[in-house]
Amino acid sequence: MKLASLRDGGRDGRLAVVSRDLSRACLAPVPTMLALMDQWEAREPALRSSYQALNDGQCESFAFDPEQAMAPLPRSFQWLDASAFLAHGALMTKALRLEKNVQGDLPLIYQGGSDSLLGPCEDVPFPSEALGIDFEGEFAICLGDVPMGATLEEAQRAIRLLTIANDWSLRALAAREMATGFGWLQCKPSTSFAPVAITPDELGAAWDQGRVKLRLSVSLNGALFGQPDGAAMDFSFPELIRHAARTRCLCAGTLLGSGTVSEGAPQRVGSACIAEMRGGEMILHGEPRTAFLKFGDEVAMTAYDADGHAPFGALSQRVVAAPRQEIS
Amino acid sequence: MKLASLRDGGRDGRLAVVSRDLSRACLAPVPTMLALMDQWEAREPALRSSYQALNDGQCESFAFDPEQAMAPLPRSFQWLDASAFLAHGALMTKALRLEKNVQGDLPLIYQGGSDSLLGPCEDVPFPSEALGIDFEGEFAICLGDVPMGATLEEAQRAIRLLTIANDWSLRALAAREMATGFGWLQCKPSTSFAPVAITPDELGAAWDQGRVKLRLSVSLNGALFGQPDGAAMDFSFPELIRHAARTRCLCAGTLLGSGTVSEGAPQRVGSACIAEMRGGEMILHGEPRTAFLKFGDEVAMTAYDADGHAPFGALSQRVVAAPRQEIS
Repeated sequence: MKLASLRDGGRDGRLAVVSRDLSRACLAPVPTMLALMDQWEAREPALRSSYQALNDGQCESFAFDPEQAMAPLPRSFQWLDASAFLAHGALMTKALRLEKNVQGDLPLIYQGGSDSLLGPCEDVPFPSEALGIDFEGEFAICLGDVPMGATLEEAQRAIRLLTIANDWSLRALAAREMATGFGWLQCKPSTSFAPVAITPDELGAAWDQGRVKLRLSVSLNGALFGQPDGAAMDFSFPELIRHAARTRCLCAGTLLGSGTVSEGAPQRVGSACIAEMRGGEMILHGEPRTAFLKFGDEVAMTAYDADGHAPFGALSQRVVAAPRQEIS
Repeated sequence: MKLASLRDGGRDGRLAVVSRDLSRACLAPVPTMLALMDQWEAREPALRSSYQALNDGQCESFAFDPEQAMAPLPRSFQWLDASAFLAHGALMTKALRLEKNVQGDLPLIYQGGSDSLLGPCEDVPFPSEALGIDFEGEFAICLGDVPMGATLEEAQRAIRLLTIANDWSLRALAAREMATGFGWLQCKPSTSFAPVAITPDELGAAWDQGRVKLRLSVSLNGALFGQPDGAAMDFSFPELIRHAARTRCLCAGTLLGSGTVSEGAPQRVGSACIAEMRGGEMILHGEPRTAFLKFGDEVAMTAYDADGHAPFGALSQRVVAAPRQEIS
């Protein structure tokens, strides 16, 4: 089943069921994705019926336009973002000559802002190019309720939907915010999401061991920037959920990201973020060579399955100057 | 105007208007606080009329029972928590013999979990006493929409409601999570809130310069633990809002905490958290003497105005073992 939230003038959008090939859509029998997450068990059968009828051409439908899609959850009660590809952290530690990798042997997860998430084709405003504007391509999941102290099995069962996220980052602010120990605030503005979120069964064998085992293709101004494989994820999504739920419950609608998809091999498969590419260049050449983003740059992300289809559709966004720019 | 969210079996509660003396309540003409925050300007006049009628005994009402109150926002799209009382950080830096204060000259704010906030009389479950269970008494505000790059004036105007928060903390997890630079996750479980959130005009002169200039009285098992003054806040709420909104907008319903109210003088006025009390003891005696919390301990918080009234009512909660306890 594939779901999208369509622009309707409201803050939460209008929930729509989208056909498997992303060509058609119909309005869902639940008004918003937020409402659905609260009542998933009760509402799932009706939604699956709609999805079946839509794919069979047996219901009224309209063309699905990703430009009209908000984030699948335009706002939610929680956005947790992990760093579950250890090769990324190891490469950055080496490139930045840090004393030690901050990772340790536990999953790293930060609490991100979930109050204003961006749709797949929305312009992305920033106050200044001097802030080191970067993207981070990730796989992400949306959860049902998770009790405090959840087991791996409970964590696995709570996974409702899968999607792609672009965790926009302002690298010039990262070091200062990390040094405080309080985590990221200004450094991590609104995150963007793919046009649809899909149930795990849609991926077939590519949803395996709690991982999305697909390459995430990231391009910058039309040129391929990287295509690291989600199979390289060191902590599975259930392991991340269990870690996050150790001391608290997680409310239905919680979004959880994998962190930058990475094989730690920017020269071989490219990277899903500029920072990692620069890290590889620092190791290889003693200096970074790839610039951070400028206003007008276009960033696209998608994942292709074995048949060459894009199960999540694509993000395709332009970085723009915020209405109020900083003097820099 | 004073507002509460009453238990109704749902996740967001039923919005109620509460009388100035907190004795009576009536259902609000908007179903939930979340809905109200989305439409504040349109709905405020009707709510103020209800509040006037309630205070005048001119409408149907029922006794207000804080035991039936959820958090004013039982869940929201954002919970930002600052550390705006610099005396607290300075004392902790000295006590822990840290190389330098992490503060710098900018406000410190972490992104907290907003998906499951606790009411003023709810038991507070934790998986283990070994985690260093602590409270943190704070003042907090609830915001309307704030644009990216907001000015101090815009920030001030976005302040809708004031309340008290208890930012429960697990100190045994703090050092590890701070060292990662990713901020707090397991260390900061669900935060608790006072039974009502109130419009700033309710405080009269005690709402001044973007600060709640009242003492926050914190007691542990019935004995006064501290009563530091909110007037000692170094960064005002508008300054904190401006900092948080530098690179992103803040959605209506955003909650923002002051951080532990502190005068940095645990021997004189006590403290709003155990960690600070222990810090004072370490400086004075070379070792901490006050223990962290045990299951069964009761923590209460309230603020009194010049007339001896408690404008926000009181939090009064018991620390309990989570249904699934860790083996420790």
